[in-house]
Amino acid sequence: MSTNSNTFFSIGIDIGGTNTDIGLVNANGVVIARSNLRTAQYFDAQLFVNDMVDVVRKLMLENNIEKITGIGIGAPCGNFHEGTIEDAKNLNFRGKTPLKKMIEAQLHVPIIVTNDANAAVYGEMIYGGAKGMKDVVMFTLGTGVGGGIIIAGKLLYGSDGFAGELGHATLVPFGRKCTCGNAGCLEMYASIRGIMQTCVELLEQFSENELAKIPREALGLKIIADAAYNGNAVAIETYRKTGEWLGIALANAVAFSSPEAIFLMGGIVKAGEILLKPTRESFAKHKLFIYKNDISVLTSQLNENDAAILGAASLVINKNQ
Amino acid sequence: MSTNSNTFFSIGIDIGGTNTDIGLVNANGVVIARSNLRTAQYFDAQLFVNDMVDVVRKLMLENNIEKITGIGIGAPCGNFHEGTIEDAKNLNFRGKTPLKKMIEAQLHVPIIVTNDANAAVYGEMIYGGAKGMKDVVMFTLGTGVGGGIIIAGKLLYGSDGFAGELGHATLVPFGRKCTCGNAGCLEMYASIRGIMQTCVELLEQFSENELAKIPREALGLKIIADAAYNGNAVAIETYRKTGEWLGIALANAVAFSSPEAIFLMGGIVKAGEILLKPTRESFAKHKLFIYKNDISVLTSQLNENDAAILGAASLVINKNQ
Repeated sequence: MSTNSNTFFSIGIDIGGTNTDIGLVNANGVVIARSNLRTAQYFDAQLFVNDMVDVVRKLMLENNIEKITGIGIGAPCGNFHEGTIEDAKNLNFRGKTPLKKMIEAQLHVPIIVTNDANAAVYGEMIYGGAKGMKDVVMFTLGTGVGGGIIIAGKLLYGSDGFAGELGHATLVPFGRKCTCGNAGCLEMYASIRGIMQTCVELLEQFSENELAKIPREALGLKIIADAAYNGNAVAIETYRKTGEWLGIALANAVAFSSPEAIFLMGGIVKAGEILLKPTRESFAKHKLFIYKNDISVLTSQLNENDAAILGAASLVINKNQ
Repeated sequence: MSTNSNTFFSIGIDIGGTNTDIGLVNANGVVIARSNLRTAQYFDAQLFVNDMVDVVRKLMLENNIEKITGIGIGAPCGNFHEGTIEDAKNLNFRGKTPLKKMIEAQLHVPIIVTNDANAAVYGEMIYGGAKGMKDVVMFTLGTGVGGGIIIAGKLLYGSDGFAGELGHATLVPFGRKCTCGNAGCLEMYASIRGIMQTCVELLEQFSENELAKIPREALGLKIIADAAYNGNAVAIETYRKTGEWLGIALANAVAFSSPEAIFLMGGIVKAGEILLKPTRESFAKHKLFIYKNDISVLTSQLNENDAAILGAASLVINKNQ
């Protein structure tokens, strides 16, 4: 598909539990205008969609854009096959919301709905550090853990539309109770919540540690990361264990789809080498010997503020490749 | 691709450590003639290939076949991208054997090399119980554990050619030592070896059990399965634990690729419901709630004696779909 940087624009929408970010993206992957809605204030999906469409029209009008390639939407529990959001626990409108159909009724452009981790990995391939790659796995490591998988240049959706739920693959059988109802999911070990729990468990053993003096409710991710860089043994061990667990999950992803590279993004990745070093060491240790190509463990190359919008907007780019 | 049952034939070759089975397969998926070589007697790959080509020519000549669609080969450590066998531990010719090139030098037909689990799942889709399906995962559960994954009707190879090494995904972090050098691989829990180890570990706790009277070296898979069906508590618990572990691995595969069905084949599956029931129960328990389609756990529908040849032969069928 030949493109001209001046000829096409797309809209990327990142629906989160608190805010929905809407951005107008040019062909070079630059967010040229943006706006947002307070998702949390909507208890009715139709009102939410109406306001979303208004914002899209306003962004186009203000920037003299008459035509867009399409709208890509990253949403919790977004189902690509059906264009729906289904039972998203952090949204106030419940059940199955036929998002694609509702928007199409007002705007006649291609609309693609998927979850935020799928949008993230596709954005990374179109605009970021995975440019030119065809087989990639992305782990989004924030409050929860998401996964996005690209196979031969295409997003993997699977028969149900929900492929890549890597945060809910069991990492530790009969391990920590997960919010999904299972136990031992990766999400309970390699997320913000997982790190907090690991740290608290360690502090129960090492009650003399400096971090034990901080009230539990005040103990946060940044405090633990800073403590680790300042040499606090419990904080370092927290990140070492997290990296060790995460490295196993990375090796398991390789055993599944044999990607060229694995990308990591999200809140816990900001800690940098204190997490990445033990992650890469554990990955190297657990990766099956048969994989001889160097499989890099990389962090997202997209600007943090733009990544979600770019990921969503990318969904309508080269989608037939 | 339109085919006529009288117009085309393919060759399927299943290379095992002991024997290599070579079969002529018609368009209806019937093995119409077969032969074999003693793999173990070959220490030189060229001699092995020469004899293999002779057998193919003989099978064609004896059945008045002038032309074949191609040759599909399932081999340990078979690499689809390179057409090679690499460092297969159960073969006497070591290093990298360029199997595809070596055969092409003598026979001018399309040749596809892959591992036996990939051949198995593809054969299941072309000729067996997965006919008409497009997203399937197969676990081959024998001495070791292999995996084959079909995504949108195509075998998943990945960038390295070795996607689907499901037997070496970590099931239990820091668990049983595996022959691959890692620990806790699925292969150490849901293979013949895994079942034996689980049974022996249980007998250490329940030394009064009938099975404890059998010398360890005489204790085999069939004895344990028979004992389970006769109500032996340790044997039943052996299969229950195996099924519980296997069910977690199945749920993890669903979290990855969201298949329509999962197929099981291989030595340990012969035990039937004593294994399948706890496997399905554990799978249902561990499968993430988001997957609403019924994902069946099925056993291979191919005749056991023909399955490997049919799987290999299928590789050259509809390969461009």
